[in-house]
Amino acid sequence: MLRTYNYQDLNTEDLQQLVQRNVDPANEIRTIVEDIISNVREHGDNALLDYARKFDKVQLEKLYLDKAELAELAQALQPEQKEALKTAYQNIYKFHQSQLSNEGKIETMPGVTCWREARPIEKVGLYIPGGTAVLPSTFLMLGIPARIAGCKEIVVCSPPQKSGKVNAFIAYVAELLDIDRIYFAGGAQAIAAMAYGTESISKVDKIFGPGNQFVTKAKTIIQSTTTTAIDMPAGPSEVLVIADETANPIFVAADLLAQAEHGIDSQAVLATTSEQMAEAVIAELNKQLPVLPRAEIAEQAIKNSYAVVVSSLNQAMQFSNLYAPEHLILASENWEQITGDIINAGSVFLGNLTPESVGDYASGTNHTLPTSAYARAYSGVSVDSFVKKITFQHISPQGITNIGPTVEILAELEGLHAHKNAVTVRLAK
Amino acid sequence: MLRTYNYQDLNTEDLQQLVQRNVDPANEIRTIVEDIISNVREHGDNALLDYARKFDKVQLEKLYLDKAELAELAQALQPEQKEALKTAYQNIYKFHQSQLSNEGKIETMPGVTCWREARPIEKVGLYIPGGTAVLPSTFLMLGIPARIAGCKEIVVCSPPQKSGKVNAFIAYVAELLDIDRIYFAGGAQAIAAMAYGTESISKVDKIFGPGNQFVTKAKTIIQSTTTTAIDMPAGPSEVLVIADETANPIFVAADLLAQAEHGIDSQAVLATTSEQMAEAVIAELNKQLPVLPRAEIAEQAIKNSYAVVVSSLNQAMQFSNLYAPEHLILASENWEQITGDIINAGSVFLGNLTPESVGDYASGTNHTLPTSAYARAYSGVSVDSFVKKITFQHISPQGITNIGPTVEILAELEGLHAHKNAVTVRLAK
Repeated sequence: MLRTYNYQDLNTEDLQQLVQRNVDPANEIRTIVEDIISNVREHGDNALLDYARKFDKVQLEKLYLDKAELAELAQALQPEQKEALKTAYQNIYKFHQSQLSNEGKIETMPGVTCWREARPIEKVGLYIPGGTAVLPSTFLMLGIPARIAGCKEIVVCSPPQKSGKVNAFIAYVAELLDIDRIYFAGGAQAIAAMAYGTESISKVDKIFGPGNQFVTKAKTIIQSTTTTAIDMPAGPSEVLVIADETANPIFVAADLLAQAEHGIDSQAVLATTSEQMAEAVIAELNKQLPVLPRAEIAEQAIKNSYAVVVSSLNQAMQFSNLYAPEHLILASENWEQITGDIINAGSVFLGNLTPESVGDYASGTNHTLPTSAYARAYSGVSVDSFVKKITFQHISPQGITNIGPTVEILAELEGLHAHKNAVTVRLAK
Repeated sequence: MLRTYNYQDLNTEDLQQLVQRNVDPANEIRTIVEDIISNVREHGDNALLDYARKFDKVQLEKLYLDKAELAELAQALQPEQKEALKTAYQNIYKFHQSQLSNEGKIETMPGVTCWREARPIEKVGLYIPGGTAVLPSTFLMLGIPARIAGCKEIVVCSPPQKSGKVNAFIAYVAELLDIDRIYFAGGAQAIAAMAYGTESISKVDKIFGPGNQFVTKAKTIIQSTTTTAIDMPAGPSEVLVIADETANPIFVAADLLAQAEHGIDSQAVLATTSEQMAEAVIAELNKQLPVLPRAEIAEQAIKNSYAVVVSSLNQAMQFSNLYAPEHLILASENWEQITGDIINAGSVFLGNLTPESVGDYASGTNHTLPTSAYARAYSGVSVDSFVKKITFQHISPQGITNIGPTVEILAELEGLHAHKNAVTVRLAK
């Protein structure tokens, strides 16, 4: 069921083809998304209410749930579910808080001092998808770094359930994050609302969150047509498992399936140094897959996936860097040997006891990660994503004497005499 | 000559209008740029040679200068010019090197360890504009952090001069940065070449550098249609000077003009607590402007600029945060009082002796900064721009016992049973 290749048999072109993901699968939906965006710009809240009727099949009385309503909904949760969400909250908080850095001042030459200071992005928009799975974990992953960064206004949009409410766990996460309102808006219309603002929803400076192809297309459009930034483009989720003979095929199969159940376009790739391991993993897939509640989805995704047999962990890493996986699992007791060779990956899971699903929920790392080989140039979401680093410089009387002549020469060299003059008038004093 | 407003007379709408910059002035040129991109994709090097003939009016024999040719060109520089470029290089290097952070490992719960490691983006493309001013300083600002980050391949494109060469100072900077080749490609065609690759030019993972509206449009297009990332969208340059009665009007006027000489679409804004200061600055502008070599450009830009008289430094800061300037100068002896209130800015120049032009060349900070109010969500270029931060996690036998049940509950709550199973099979061992 899992296509298997031998790395030795693949030439450069084969490899390129194998690691290729469709980076713009949604180009054909551009027109639809552009229509939605201009409709939301023009009709604001009314457009959102219309789309809720049309796409979410719900007639909303108002566009949001407030704090009291959220608190009431949250009561439906079991105590152990609340505890689990709290544990996840604490771990994610602890790791993300450590990302706040305090950099020192640098005197680049006597009297010339430079430094950086982080400032929160004032208004951020979080998109929490509904759809085949509702993800309170995504709400934690975006809300926690936004709170740590100190963002002043956090706008949260999520598609309404058929009930005209949100799920109890989303409501409880809102409580944990001290969020006042959740707006009912899904898909491209939610992104448009946060980029342009409506009567109810504030225009934000940056939009975060995964979503389907309509959401992603809307994000890339507003990124190139407004000053609103986005966290990253996001495609279907994916995992690459590197396994040697010290891996456990039961664990490896379970990890591949955890990825496969996300959606039919998810990809689960195995790179193994052992042909026996490949066979054992495939046997395990055949055993574990049929009993899954989301077996149909997982089966489709596995058809879209493959295994590669390599000759060494180094070769596996070479392949991995070419693939640039969102999630990379090093299913090996020898993981310490190869972590230094990782160049392109979103988040990495080390050793046989670190399943990718711990990172989805509770280890502390962020699960909003670059897919589709974007890991070559993008990082996952972190506190950094919610701040700007502003540079500062101060020059003393001694400093301007030291640096002035250099600036005068360079400005002259570039033919920018007013640049030079800004120094000359100060040196003259 | 400088339009002057009184802050008290401006309502919210006036203010919005005043701080508005055209974020997508180049939308009408989309078709032209799309044509250039598909032409370069299809015809590669030949397309670049054609565009050099058409746009740069030069018949190239080959598409690049190599190390020996660059070294020869660099000999035309005077010793004091080399010294100035070296001083700038050292200051920029020193400040950017301090941005390499080494984060610790965090044990989020016993046996669950998370951390981040920076990895260089492997292949980066630097665009060094030619045009009305050739900017070796931009080459330093992009090349130094790329080298510090450890990028494996640095592709440099710059439009050819009429001579079919590059300037001596560009050649000398290539020497300082140990760059092997400079490719002759300008405008949208250079961006397309680096995003898709040609016979001579490697496809890169991220493209950096300012440019005209064609370059910017090409960058935003490739950002949303390929996996190649960009540093940031960039519009015309701008400065906001906040001046109180302790400012020096000669310095302030010189700083406004340094901005204005960049281009006719540059903007130089003054926010001052003193009407007398506004008048004195305008008088100085009238004196300093006419004698500038680029007076015509500066005059146009000043027409596009304005002054706002405010009642306090706090009010000036409020205005500044709304404007979100690329460059912010605090022309005041009291700058320390207000730096804490800065929320949105690219780079900040503190006190009366810190002209913006020192940051353009040599203070050490980067001059590639967010314009057009992008400073609300974007940071300037830094070493961070040339690396990804990859998250790692490791779970010990104790750790999986501690975190496992939490992940099982949350996966079940989200209806993702294969996610749960990846933990269950490990707990069973």
